[in-house]
Amino acid sequence: MAKMTPRTLSGFMELLPAPQQQMERIMETLRRTYALYGFTPLDTPVIESSEVLLAKGGGETEKQIYRFTKGDADLSLRFDLTVPLAKYVALHYNDLSFPFRRYQIGKVYRGERAQRGRFREFYQADIDIIGDGKLSILNEAEIPAIIYRTFSALGLRRFQIRVNNRKILNGFYAMMGLTERSGDIMRTVDKLDKIGAEKVGALLVADCGLTHDQADEILKFIAISGSNETVLSALEGYRGRNEVFDQGLTELATVVRYLADFGVPAEHFAVDLTIARGLDYYTGTVYETTLLDHPEIGSVCSGGRYDNLAEYYTDRQLPGVGISIGLTRLFYVLGEQGMLNPDLPTAPADVLILPMTEDLSAAISLATLLRDNGIRAQLHWEEKKFKQKISYADKLSIPYVIFLGEDEIAAGVVACKDMATGEQTKLEPAATVYHIKAGLAEREKGAVILG
Amino acid sequence: MAKMTPRTLSGFMELLPAPQQQMERIMETLRRTYALYGFTPLDTPVIESSEVLLAKGGGETEKQIYRFTKGDADLSLRFDLTVPLAKYVALHYNDLSFPFRRYQIGKVYRGERAQRGRFREFYQADIDIIGDGKLSILNEAEIPAIIYRTFSALGLRRFQIRVNNRKILNGFYAMMGLTERSGDIMRTVDKLDKIGAEKVGALLVADCGLTHDQADEILKFIAISGSNETVLSALEGYRGRNEVFDQGLTELATVVRYLADFGVPAEHFAVDLTIARGLDYYTGTVYETTLLDHPEIGSVCSGGRYDNLAEYYTDRQLPGVGISIGLTRLFYVLGEQGMLNPDLPTAPADVLILPMTEDLSAAISLATLLRDNGIRAQLHWEEKKFKQKISYADKLSIPYVIFLGEDEIAAGVVACKDMATGEQTKLEPAATVYHIKAGLAEREKGAVILG
Repeated sequence: MAKMTPRTLSGFMELLPAPQQQMERIMETLRRTYALYGFTPLDTPVIESSEVLLAKGGGETEKQIYRFTKGDADLSLRFDLTVPLAKYVALHYNDLSFPFRRYQIGKVYRGERAQRGRFREFYQADIDIIGDGKLSILNEAEIPAIIYRTFSALGLRRFQIRVNNRKILNGFYAMMGLTERSGDIMRTVDKLDKIGAEKVGALLVADCGLTHDQADEILKFIAISGSNETVLSALEGYRGRNEVFDQGLTELATVVRYLADFGVPAEHFAVDLTIARGLDYYTGTVYETTLLDHPEIGSVCSGGRYDNLAEYYTDRQLPGVGISIGLTRLFYVLGEQGMLNPDLPTAPADVLILPMTEDLSAAISLATLLRDNGIRAQLHWEEKKFKQKISYADKLSIPYVIFLGEDEIAAGVVACKDMATGEQTKLEPAATVYHIKAGLAEREKGAVILG
Repeated sequence: MAKMTPRTLSGFMELLPAPQQQMERIMETLRRTYALYGFTPLDTPVIESSEVLLAKGGGETEKQIYRFTKGDADLSLRFDLTVPLAKYVALHYNDLSFPFRRYQIGKVYRGERAQRGRFREFYQADIDIIGDGKLSILNEAEIPAIIYRTFSALGLRRFQIRVNNRKILNGFYAMMGLTERSGDIMRTVDKLDKIGAEKVGALLVADCGLTHDQADEILKFIAISGSNETVLSALEGYRGRNEVFDQGLTELATVVRYLADFGVPAEHFAVDLTIARGLDYYTGTVYETTLLDHPEIGSVCSGGRYDNLAEYYTDRQLPGVGISIGLTRLFYVLGEQGMLNPDLPTAPADVLILPMTEDLSAAISLATLLRDNGIRAQLHWEEKKFKQKISYADKLSIPYVIFLGEDEIAAGVVACKDMATGEQTKLEPAATVYHIKAGLAEREKGAVILG
């Protein structure tokens, strides 16, 4: 028969078993951590009606959308988890209690140009807090704590949560009389990291039509840096000139104020006036998270406050705050950088049992006992040589191999080999369970990412 | 602004938060149980190239497939998890160790006619064991143990795993000289439950062209029932007339023999000679699992042994055995039947903290302490009346509410109300953690399904 050469589409991540185990650990850590803050898991369809999904219309992403017809239905694959959330909240409004906190970890689809590290199918891991009409600034203050706990639980150490407030930016440009040009200005300022302050200043004059004084004023403003207290104190110097600015500054001060109570160490947090995060959607606090040793990756967890989640579906005012982790890309980058902990177990089983007798009853009963105690056990009963079975355990990094022969069965003991140390024990089944569980607990001690 | 009425496509399950929590519990139980048997989690793309996905071609499902073009690529959404597994194993053959055990819980897509309880997007939860060239019958013997442990862990009690062996059927029809008509015969026999033995006998004569004697012989054969020993002993009466039959009988006897060692109680298992599970794919043991009190649902976990997983992609012989749970449909049916345990927590948080002071430091520190101890805590800091906040906890079934006022802060205690009993404690923070954890453990004791 003619064979079809199997392949996986370019831009679609398909992991081998060991890295998949690492990915599962990351997802489990996200689920557990998000849940600690009262976020409930949601799952929405991958396919939505195009007119619903694209109600907002236009935009950069529309060309990238996987859109097709089935029968007479015009369908699209979701390209983020925010639009489905807006639909969900508008649709199920009467069945939800607000503030509504949800997390969702799911695949989204964007037909981007295929290139290394860019994915067309990728996981996003989102949390959002949605209010009904109003939403306290304290939710914005809590977000850095969630990012901090999440990244710490994953094992990351050298990261920084950068925070700004759109009201401060909007208010600042308003007090300079530059509200109408603020979009262009922010796009130019965004190049600061790449081209430096001098060139940004020149562009502000040449492209945005500012005076040299205005450009200098902006450069001076965005250069404000230092400790949280230093930055806040410098910003206080601008207070009283614009109401929106003042409000933003008060919000930022609130976010900073509760950091310590939330357990966020100061070195993991910085007010950064250069962060804007797009132009339309966000209206208050905005967040970016960078890995200090890998600034080239850009932000790995971003988001912010918005005033109107579902304006395309409902007249209700539904303000919210949320953050998103681009999980597939993050996982890819961590792998590339060698930051995935190779010491955590990735084996499909904790124990491989090699029955050495024709009658398998004793081996099967032992496997059942191990499983009853939460130990992942596989019986190797294929017709293979002993050496091949050991090599199987080796290749899969299965930590323990148990040999069960006539002698052991007669003596009521189990011969168990620790594959890492070579140490072999001969203990009763219950003691073997204890021995293995202690060893596994030790092996599980690290975090999945080497921070 | 004109609003788009939000809606979710018909045939797509979108759960409210409480049932979603139940669904998450079921998935977590499946993941944990499958892992105990050495299955490793896999995740493959939802989208595949059509020529790869449809290499097998034709078939009932092809009309139902979501197929579309993007750029010049002809793409399809996966309609099961078996074809992607075949592709995966053929593609990554050199990186895998055999026997290869994987589980996958993922969404698949079939554009079926929309009707109540039929889904176009639905989860399948599959396990498969793939051998390289050969695969021991013992894997087939282990499958009932996996089904039993999985269903028991979910809380089901009244279910039965029904097992047959295709070689017994094929061998039986061969010894009757009816091999060429076996397809028609099995399709007719499949109606036994619906129309009864008499009518099946008549159809065998009228439609399949059998003699009355042949029809009687078949009816006598498939009527063999009783305890496993009774059935096996009756089948022994046919031994020696056909090699394939004899092999199938030996395999079936092996499957039955190790049941007790695997911990499967006899009442959860039955040899059932009427089970065939399709005509081409399966070659050995076949499985169906029925809920005894809901036979109308049909099989909720089915599968079997096959000899050639990836014949469309590779010349390698890759035999396997697998089972699949149609999770979305099962969840739907369980909900309809009132079989989802309403007593297990579905709240987004374990504790709702109501700060009663302007300064939130103490409340936030307490929430941080609770979270450090694995307790899901939400702070309610919105500007709402006390009564509204209590009602929020009530509606979401949050089990504990903590009040933290000046007095409690000064005294170093926490006022904590058990919302179910109304009992209120005033304890130090550490004692409150202990109190809540004990209460939560009690609440978590049941299983997710009422069996």
